[in-house]
Amino acid sequence: MILTVTLNPALDVTYTVDAVVVGGTHRVREAATRPGGKGLNVARVLHALGTPVLATGLIGGADGERIVELLAAVGVASDFVAIAGGSRRTVVVTDGADATGFWESGPPVQAGEWASFLVRYRDCLAGATVVVLAGSLPRGLPDDTYALLGSIARDAGVPTVLDADGPALRAGLRADPAVVKPNAAELAATTGYAVDTVAAARLAARELRGSRATTVVASLGGAGLVASTVDGDWHARLPAPVPGNPTGAGDACVAALAAGLHHGLDWPALLTEAVACSAASVTEPGAGVVRPERMHALRADVVVEEI
Amino acid sequence: MILTVTLNPALDVTYTVDAVVVGGTHRVREAATRPGGKGLNVARVLHALGTPVLATGLIGGADGERIVELLAAVGVASDFVAIAGGSRRTVVVTDGADATGFWESGPPVQAGEWASFLVRYRDCLAGATVVVLAGSLPRGLPDDTYALLGSIARDAGVPTVLDADGPALRAGLRADPAVVKPNAAELAATTGYAVDTVAAARLAARELRGSRATTVVASLGGAGLVASTVDGDWHARLPAPVPGNPTGAGDACVAALAAGLHHGLDWPALLTEAVACSAASVTEPGAGVVRPERMHALRADVVVEEI
Repeated sequence: MILTVTLNPALDVTYTVDAVVVGGTHRVREAATRPGGKGLNVARVLHALGTPVLATGLIGGADGERIVELLAAVGVASDFVAIAGGSRRTVVVTDGADATGFWESGPPVQAGEWASFLVRYRDCLAGATVVVLAGSLPRGLPDDTYALLGSIARDAGVPTVLDADGPALRAGLRADPAVVKPNAAELAATTGYAVDTVAAARLAARELRGSRATTVVASLGGAGLVASTVDGDWHARLPAPVPGNPTGAGDACVAALAAGLHHGLDWPALLTEAVACSAASVTEPGAGVVRPERMHALRADVVVEEI
Repeated sequence: MILTVTLNPALDVTYTVDAVVVGGTHRVREAATRPGGKGLNVARVLHALGTPVLATGLIGGADGERIVELLAAVGVASDFVAIAGGSRRTVVVTDGADATGFWESGPPVQAGEWASFLVRYRDCLAGATVVVLAGSLPRGLPDDTYALLGSIARDAGVPTVLDADGPALRAGLRADPAVVKPNAAELAATTGYAVDTVAAARLAARELRGSRATTVVASLGGAGLVASTVDGDWHARLPAPVPGNPTGAGDACVAALAAGLHHGLDWPALLTEAVACSAASVTEPGAGVVRPERMHALRADVVVEEI
């Protein structure tokens, strides 16, 4: 089973309105809710791909209960630690032309809650083949939180896929994750390189990897994925970008990378899966949704080149 | 005790962000919640004025529970009927320059829930001196809902203050409420008159009143109140408009009108209270808040003229 860790999950609320006007009052025509936060998007995609998955993390309040219910409704098993603070909401307002987002920061985490989570996390790792650490850290937890969780996984013999940015990404590398997946902006911000071509992405990915066994997979949007591994470097892409909604494409990529590790694929095969899964996600209106048949159709078109 | 009826209450959420940009993503710096819906604003103001008040209506879900908790936290007693649908939220995003609002429509009401409410409403009326019917109707209830509730109150010997607009206002008049309080736009829309001067407001108010015993109190923002009653017509105002936030000023006006009926004030005294209470509300940043000492200071400046 793949374990996903979501320390700051969200109830994602989408309001559909007529044209958004700053300073205006808008009647909400439709309000839709779904589980949110990178780790939960990854869990939903893994479940859609038929990969056994368990979602853990921290959850609180009525919106936290709702998140667990919504996960259960789509068949995703979860084992969260309850905290006193209420889980956050994200509100996205769509009017056909634009999506305007409002991100709550989420509740703080108490020391005792964190201690309880670490016990639960170790228990969950006992049944895991891969662990995914993805998304923002809640208030009260230090930048090296993913380094700690990665080290515990390493000690348990479970490879880690890390999707974080900024200080959490830099610190997380210290635990030698199997894979890190920055996007172009995160890779540029972390290495100081301009990441505007495949060649530049490869240089930056190699810089980020350094002498580690970690594979760096940089997601470049329509330009595909550039991977730097101990076995060589690859560029994987579709002949042309898929039109659609890029929100959640990175999470679908992470899900495919984790599933590939779970199934023991080699890097070219794993990157093919990740490109096809990301592109299948782009064809869906919301994050966390991938149709396996769509992914299957796209897989045949993926081109992987050693670079 | 004054009974307030809120059939479509809301959990009002205010997000504070940096400048709102359509199509942008915004970090919420602060998220504040309070009970919302006109009837609950009226109940909070009545409680602040020291008038005994009981809030009833329909409430559901976790946000409904939160509304009741927030009312209790400020000392407002409530006796709501629970419904299956979850109470709505309103989200207002403030960035210092503008307030941009998103209004959920609220849950539908089932027939059995409505039947339960009517029983509860009659029970609550037994202890009431005045009943306030204010705000939008939930889905599933007809336009003449306030007419029905007003008739039941009349049969129980309890005078009604009605704050509604459109079809609910027109239908509600049939039950001969003691007072209706349209604002200028609602009065204009209901009568077809342009309501752009005090004289025009008086004409429109007399038209709306017709041959009824009902008093029409039209709220004209900084121009004060124009009342048409069976005993004569009045204009009540401050010498100059008070600067501030007009949101909730109408609800503060309704609260003062209901409190005036409760205390048996004559029309000039009652209109003085209503102008002072509205203006005191304008000096507060949010709806449903009035400081009695602020209202007391403003009261001395109110001018009431028979017109």
